[in-house]
Amino acid sequence: MKKTIGILGGMGPLATADLYRKIVENTKADGDNDHIRVYIDSNCAIPDRTAAILRGGPDPVPEMLDALRNLEKCGADCVIMPCNTAHYFLPRLQERTAQPILDMREITAAQCAARFPGACACLLGTKGTLEAKIYDAALAQQGVDFLLPGERERDELMRLIYGVVKASRPLKPEMEAWHELLVTLRGQGADYFVLACTELPILAAALGHPGPFIDPTLELAKAAIRFCGYETK
Amino acid sequence: MKKTIGILGGMGPLATADLYRKIVENTKADGDNDHIRVYIDSNCAIPDRTAAILRGGPDPVPEMLDALRNLEKCGADCVIMPCNTAHYFLPRLQERTAQPILDMREITAAQCAARFPGACACLLGTKGTLEAKIYDAALAQQGVDFLLPGERERDELMRLIYGVVKASRPLKPEMEAWHELLVTLRGQGADYFVLACTELPILAAALGHPGPFIDPTLELAKAAIRFCGYETK
Repeated sequence: MKKTIGILGGMGPLATADLYRKIVENTKADGDNDHIRVYIDSNCAIPDRTAAILRGGPDPVPEMLDALRNLEKCGADCVIMPCNTAHYFLPRLQERTAQPILDMREITAAQCAARFPGACACLLGTKGTLEAKIYDAALAQQGVDFLLPGERERDELMRLIYGVVKASRPLKPEMEAWHELLVTLRGQGADYFVLACTELPILAAALGHPGPFIDPTLELAKAAIRFCGYETK
Repeated sequence: MKKTIGILGGMGPLATADLYRKIVENTKADGDNDHIRVYIDSNCAIPDRTAAILRGGPDPVPEMLDALRNLEKCGADCVIMPCNTAHYFLPRLQERTAQPILDMREITAAQCAARFPGACACLLGTKGTLEAKIYDAALAQQGVDFLLPGERERDELMRLIYGVVKASRPLKPEMEAWHELLVTLRGQGADYFVLACTELPILAAALGHPGPFIDPTLELAKAAIRFCGYETK
């Protein structure tokens, strides 16, 4: 019996759409009936994760649990969350559900080790993800060497994530800012970039830079496909 | 109190992803929390609609109802179906749910009348949609003049829908075939095209043709946004 996926979404909605499309496009299928059954709750009422972690903003867990209950009711066999920062709250969610929540950080770190052995990653994400060290243990576990953007670059990442992608602003005018950011980080020793905020693969796809990138959204999609017993393309 | 959307999806999965993205991209929003809560059941077990209508294939209604029950359990205030052919079964679904199912045909026909008054539409869709006259009443109601593709063009549409988009084949190599099809139909009197199969807007976006087109997926997304009390962009 093949399994189904539940997407605990809305963090943000465009990133949720991106993950869902990546599941569909990476499933080996010749027609509608070869695909995986996917349940999504795009709960846009979930409070901001970075604000909760760093600035004492409202706890997002109650609204995340509300979505999780819907996915359970539908019958999802696993749960995935298209928000890196949200993984800070994964242990609190996992202890309240029997459904396995696939951990985007572990899946991503394994890809870093496999694809770029010995190279230095640069972790791009929200201040919540970077300052709460959300990825650090997973990367260390896989022996992945990495550097973090400095204060100026973190501000720029927050502007691109919150002020552009989440704010539904046009992406194209950010081409120069995005390329400049990556050049700076390259100069600091980054061999490749981990797009560890689900808004960033959307930006990267629109602004065409050679990277190289690791896209945690894509890796999560592929891991979920395999978890369900389907083949990836 | 703003409302929520339930997407009865999986017919096909890529079209479901397309509708969901169009809802997100067309909602006026400055951040995650300004978006609409959307529930999706992408139920890929729903039997083929055209096969059921024209060739006595398995009835899709039980699996459609299964997805509808999940959307009800989540608390969706309205239901939308990203499959034009599936609208053949809308009355059987509507009589079994209190949630309003927004009718993509009526929404599309109203747009045809508003945007192309007096012009001749060409209805592009599956054989199920064309032969069961799924759109005819809605177009007639709005006084929209339209023509249907002939047998050869219907075969070509089925090949593009089933043999290319639903079969996860590359779209770009179909550029010439798609343009040729539209030129032929233009020669027969079509002033504009209604992309009345949810796989066709995906093809049209990838193959860049000036149309002009009416995209029922986009119109359904916008109608659902307005139904929920949100503003479209």
